[in-house]
Amino acid sequence: MREAYQSDLKHLVEDLVHMASLVENAIRDSAVALSSGDLALAERVIAADITIDERQVDLDEKIVELLARQSPVATDLRLLVAALRMSSSLERMGDLAEHVALAARRRFPDLVVPEHHREALAKMAELAVQGTHDAGEVIRTRDLALAALVERRDDEMDALQTELYRAVTRDRELPTEQVMDLILLGRYYERMGDHAVSLVRRVGFLVTGDSIDARSPITDVPEV
Amino acid sequence: MREAYQSDLKHLVEDLVHMASLVENAIRDSAVALSSGDLALAERVIAADITIDERQVDLDEKIVELLARQSPVATDLRLLVAALRMSSSLERMGDLAEHVALAARRRFPDLVVPEHHREALAKMAELAVQGTHDAGEVIRTRDLALAALVERRDDEMDALQTELYRAVTRDRELPTEQVMDLILLGRYYERMGDHAVSLVRRVGFLVTGDSIDARSPITDVPEV
Repeated sequence: MREAYQSDLKHLVEDLVHMASLVENAIRDSAVALSSGDLALAERVIAADITIDERQVDLDEKIVELLARQSPVATDLRLLVAALRMSSSLERMGDLAEHVALAARRRFPDLVVPEHHREALAKMAELAVQGTHDAGEVIRTRDLALAALVERRDDEMDALQTELYRAVTRDRELPTEQVMDLILLGRYYERMGDHAVSLVRRVGFLVTGDSIDARSPITDVPEV
Repeated sequence: MREAYQSDLKHLVEDLVHMASLVENAIRDSAVALSSGDLALAERVIAADITIDERQVDLDEKIVELLARQSPVATDLRLLVAALRMSSSLERMGDLAEHVALAARRRFPDLVVPEHHREALAKMAELAVQGTHDAGEVIRTRDLALAALVERRDDEMDALQTELYRAVTRDRELPTEQVMDLILLGRYYERMGDHAVSLVRRVGFLVTGDSIDARSPITDVPEV
């Protein structure tokens, strides 16, 4: 009984890691669809989001079942509560990747991002992919040095967003539709970065018991 | 012991309702700060967000303690898990109200919203205030007819966002900073509406056991 329970907890962590890898793929694929105008790929990302949503529902059901069946306390209980939060963050990251794919589809056959802003968006997408990948690794290994790297990378993401917004503001030639797309895309990537930070902070809390959220809130608004 | 526990659950619901009222005030005050350029009021909303954040931390601790101490099952367990999710949504709504206040502060002494877009923003703010108020009522009373009204009102919010984005797109005179502000403000309000729906759906699930999330996902991206 006890052994089965420990194995259930292990599976739960594996499920979260797997969900993170699905989200990582969605973010990567949507970025490729965005930069290349690949409509079929955008459609695949949009269609695949339901799988991520279903993963969250399954995970949540498993967690509630474990809470009911095992009445966990202390560390195990904290893990289950953290897992509820993490599945939520991952599901939301999947939605944001879907939004990127929807933008690509909406403007097809045009490219959403004008050439001189493409590098900034590509960098943000890369940071989001790396952040998601590493957050999955942190969930798997509880490597807090890697967690710290995810935090630092999100500072870079925030700086890129501010830079993008300033560049868009200076870019007087840009049609309003493109301003709108760039502002929203910048926001989607920045929020993906925040969720990656939120994921690794939950793991940090499980390991050290020390929540840094209150001391150091996640910046999620650009200073433009 | 059992009585104390039922009283704890009752307090938990009261805490959620109180948190909803703090968020409702934040949304209302930030909308006034936005439309009137009232810097002092914007500062108050920004400063008060920490109170909402602390409420969430307190609530989550209470919930974890109840899970640990009472090992709830069935309905009580579902309530506690729903409460975790609801405190999360409310905290996020508070952040969004803070973002509105930050926008007001950033552009002070100018008004953020140009005159001909002011009515649209005011309507969105009003829907967000009403949605938050009613979500609090639904949490308190479990009134599913009111929950349905919150859902319908969010459709109106989505329509207003789409309309705003189209109007901004057509508005060729608008400086890029204002386009940026309007797009982000529209997004903040639309997300507040989504969170209100998410709140009442959690209550609906507690009452009927029927989750409609999978059948009818909350639309959170404008079709422009």
